[in-house]
Amino acid sequence: MAVRAQQKERTRRALIDAALGQISAERGFSNLSLREVAREAGVAPTSFYRHFPDLEALGLALVDEAGTELRRRMREARQRFGTEGGVVRASVDTFIQFLIGNANLFYLLSRERAVGSPAFRRAIRREIDHFIDELACDLERECRDRGILMSDISIVAESMVTIVFNEGLEFIDNKEENVQDVTQKMVQQLRMIALGAEAMARREQISPGPE
Amino acid sequence: MAVRAQQKERTRRALIDAALGQISAERGFSNLSLREVAREAGVAPTSFYRHFPDLEALGLALVDEAGTELRRRMREARQRFGTEGGVVRASVDTFIQFLIGNANLFYLLSRERAVGSPAFRRAIRREIDHFIDELACDLERECRDRGILMSDISIVAESMVTIVFNEGLEFIDNKEENVQDVTQKMVQQLRMIALGAEAMARREQISPGPE
Repeated sequence: MAVRAQQKERTRRALIDAALGQISAERGFSNLSLREVAREAGVAPTSFYRHFPDLEALGLALVDEAGTELRRRMREARQRFGTEGGVVRASVDTFIQFLIGNANLFYLLSRERAVGSPAFRRAIRREIDHFIDELACDLERECRDRGILMSDISIVAESMVTIVFNEGLEFIDNKEENVQDVTQKMVQQLRMIALGAEAMARREQISPGPE
Repeated sequence: MAVRAQQKERTRRALIDAALGQISAERGFSNLSLREVAREAGVAPTSFYRHFPDLEALGLALVDEAGTELRRRMREARQRFGTEGGVVRASVDTFIQFLIGNANLFYLLSRERAVGSPAFRRAIRREIDHFIDELACDLERECRDRGILMSDISIVAESMVTIVFNEGLEFIDNKEENVQDVTQKMVQQLRMIALGAEAMARREQISPGPE
């Protein structure tokens, strides 16, 4: 029974990997065929349905798993480094490594975010929101640890994620920049936002707005 | 002759408007048909070619004209208001008004940026770069006028444009937020970046990095 479950998981994985392998900058998820994905995974087309009801369900599982994995790595990177510069730098490095190692996944996210089915767009939105929430949590803890104040941490986190995601997609899309330059630029953008949030908190302490 | 030129410009405009009118959140530029666009504009399909070599050329003209118009309005908005809060607020208001009044255009930009032809993507990238350059110019002048320093104005401008564009696309895409909330959020995000750039410039004055 355990063996069969393992086998089932392996086939599921093979199907997801086969789909991901067929995506490119030019070929989106909606251009995949179930038959081709199954063949690539070495599975009969009819067996596909034992794993997913349709290709979209496979795509949603893919978005979910990739988001979970990326968030796990980001959490790790942020925990490994205690200092401000360290956290920002480590987060950006980790994100860019993931981006480069999973270019097809980001082609998928970039396309489906713009032209995907409502379910696809919601799934991507949900992953990004998770991402923002976790970053906000880590920022809050960091502020407590370092005894600093930041204004509106959820907006800080949202700005940071918007910047990192979009600069990242831009980077794999046009490939004109090199890794060092894009890393450097992202780090500076994030530090600017962090410093701005601290400056804003100081202003609010001096003249608190209406509550 | 002048009358004929006017007539030609009117037909060109009608073709662009017809194409724009047929785009929606669900229907992208690549799903348009030249025949349908011509019919909608009240023009024979063969006359289409007197104005554009193909549909893509019409799309590129559309992106170019819309970018020019949006930048004109943003420049105006930024010039009307002298104070910091005023400029940011006026820019965001102007952008959101343009966004709401031209939702189809932003559906087009959102889709084509992700899945468009290389020429389309380059055209959109170029408009965004113009946008960043003009904002950087205005920020520089404002800093001079107010006697403040900001670190790396081109990165400040790029961060601001990335935020405003992506939050804007998100806004017309999911429509869960209301205009006031999204305006408020964008204003805060931009102010944070501006304050951060000032704080960074102060730090650099204290301990200048390697030149």
